Amino acid sequence: MASRDARAAADRLAARLERAGSPICVGLDPVVEQLPSALAGVEPAEAIERFCLGVLDAVEGIAGAVKPQSACFERHGPAGVAALARVMAAASGRFEVILDAKRGDIGLTAAHYAAAARHLRADWVTANGYLGADGLRPFLEAGLGVFALVRTSNPGGDAVQSRVLQDGRTVAEMIADMVASEGAAFAGESGWSNLGAVVGATKARDAAALRARMPHQLFLVPGFGAQGGGVDDVRACLGAGGGGVVVTASRSVTYAFQGRGDVRWTDAVAEAARQFHAQLAPLGAAGAA
Amino acid sequence: MASRDARAAADRLAARLERAGSPICVGLDPVVEQLPSALAGVEPAEAIERFCLGVLDAVEGIAGAVKPQSACFERHGPAGVAALARVMAAASGRFEVILDAKRGDIGLTAAHYAAAARHLRADWVTANGYLGADGLRPFLEAGLGVFALVRTSNPGGDAVQSRVLQDGRTVAEMIADMVASEGAAFAGESGWSNLGAVVGATKARDAAALRARMPHQLFLVPGFGAQGGGVDDVRACLGAGGGGVVVTASRSVTYAFQGRGDVRWTDAVAEAARQFHAQLAPLGAAGAA
Repeated sequence: MASRDARAAADRLAARLERAGSPICVGLDPVVEQLPSALAGVEPAEAIERFCLGVLDAVEGIAGAVKPQSACFERHGPAGVAALARVMAAASGRFEVILDAKRGDIGLTAAHYAAAARHLRADWVTANGYLGADGLRPFLEAGLGVFALVRTSNPGGDAVQSRVLQDGRTVAEMIADMVASEGAAFAGESGWSNLGAVVGATKARDAAALRARMPHQLFLVPGFGAQGGGVDDVRACLGAGGGGVVVTASRSVTYAFQGRGDVRWTDAVAEAARQFHAQLAPLGAAGAA
Repeated sequence: MASRDARAAADRLAARLERAGSPICVGLDPVVEQLPSALAGVEPAEAIERFCLGVLDAVEGIAGAVKPQSACFERHGPAGVAALARVMAAASGRFEVILDAKRGDIGLTAAHYAAAARHLRADWVTANGYLGADGLRPFLEAGLGVFALVRTSNPGGDAVQSRVLQDGRTVAEMIADMVASEGAAFAGESGWSNLGAVVGATKARDAAALRARMPHQLFLVPGFGAQGGGVDDVRACLGAGGGGVVVTASRSVTYAFQGRGDVRWTDAVAEAARQFHAQLAPLGAAGAA
C-alpha cells in the first residue's frame, strides 16, 4: 500500500477517466458457465481468474476503471477469494479498481471491511448506507473511495427507494442528502468527493433530481448495455461541468466473444470495450465538480 | 450439504434454541489484539481460527447458535476467509450457524452470495433489504434462513431508519412490512418464517411496534451486553407466544477471560456463556409463532 498515489481517491479516479478519454468502467462478473471454450474443464476458481486476467489485458488502454464483483469470486469459497486477490493485484495501478462488494456494517466491523478492501488493494468500494453514515465513514477514513447505494437499477428497489417521506423527499433522496453531507469532509482537489453514489442507469427520471442533491458526488452508473440503460439515461447523471459519471458495463463487454467463432475471445472483448468507449466518450470524462 | 437437516431453517433454529433452553447466540468477532496470551505471536489468520475453535468448544452444550462476523476474517485476506471456512465447518451441525455478512445485492449477484454462504455451510445469513425483496429472495430460495436488517443498534441508524414516511410508517417499519410480506411464503412448520429480522436490543421503544408488524419473524437481537442492551430491552422483541428471539452477545462472552489470570481462558468463556444462558433463559426459547 506504500506505493498508493497520495491524491484523494476521487482525484485519482477523475484523472484516470480523463486520461482514458471516456468515463467507462468494465465490470468483472465472471460466471463459469459463460467463459470462453478455451477455459472449459479448468477448475472454477482458476478459470474465472484466468478469464479476468485476460479481460484486464484486453481492455487496458481502453478503460480507466474496472469493477470486480466480489460475489462471483466468493461463491467459490476461499479459493475464489484468493483468485479475487490475484485479479485485484493484477489490476491495481493499471486501472482504478472499484471492488463491488456492497458491504454495510457499522463502527469496528465497517473498519474490518475497509481493511479487507485495502488488503485486496481496492481503490474504491461499493457500500450500503441503510445503517447511516456510521457505515460509510470507516471506509473513507481508511483512504478508500466509496460509492454508496442510492438508487439501484432493479425493479424491486422501487418498493424501498421510491417511498416518499413526510418531508416530501423519497428514501433515495434522503440517502442522497446524507451522502452529500457526509461526503463534504472528504472532497478532493478536483471538487469531487471520495464519497460517491450508485445511481442505476435505468432510473433516468430520478437521476436528475439526485444529481441536484449531490453536485460533488461521482456517480457510479451500472446497468448500461445488458441491463437496458442507454446513453440518454446516463446524460441525466452528469454533473454541472458535464462529467462526474463512471459508467459500468459488464456482460456486454466481457462476454462479447459469445457467438463470435471468427475472432480470438480477447479480441472480441477489446473490440466491445472500444465500442463502449466510443459510445460514452461524447459525455466527457470526469472533469471537475 | 447432503447431510443438511431437511426442515426449514426457522424450524431447525427454533428447535435448537428450545433444546438449549435459552435463546442465546454467541457472536464470533475475533480481533487479534484481544486474543488470549496463549495465542500471542501466532500468525493472525491462524490465531483467530484457533481462538474461534476454542470458543466453539467452550460454549458447546450451552449456546444453540453462533454468529461468526465475516468482516473479522475478511480483513486478513484469503487466508482469513479460509480460516472462516474452517471455523464454519467446525461449527456446522454442533450449532445453528448464522453468518453475519450483511450482504445486499440483487438477482444473480445475490444468488452468488447465497452460493458463497452455502459453500461456507451457513444455516442463516444476515442481509440488507435496501435493494428490496429482490435482494433477499435468492438467499431464501437457496434454502438459507435470512435475518434482514430492519432496525440496527448504532446511533447513526436513526438518521435513516427512524425517518417517517407520508403514510406514517418509519423507514424501519416499511422494511418490516416488506419482510413480513416476503417471508410469508417461507414459513416453517413452527410458524416462524425463514426470513427473520435484525432488531437491535438498544431500540426497545421501536421493538414492540416492529414485533406487531412481524409476528412470524424470528428476531436476531444484537447489542446485548457490551453494546448496552439488557434483558428488559429484549422483552419488547418477544413474539405473542413468548419466544421468537435470538439474542447475541459477542465480546462480553468471548473476551470474558480478559483480566482473569486465575482461570484458563476457555473456562472463563464457558462461565460467561453460562451466565448469559441463565440471564436469558427466563425469556423462553424460540417456541412457536
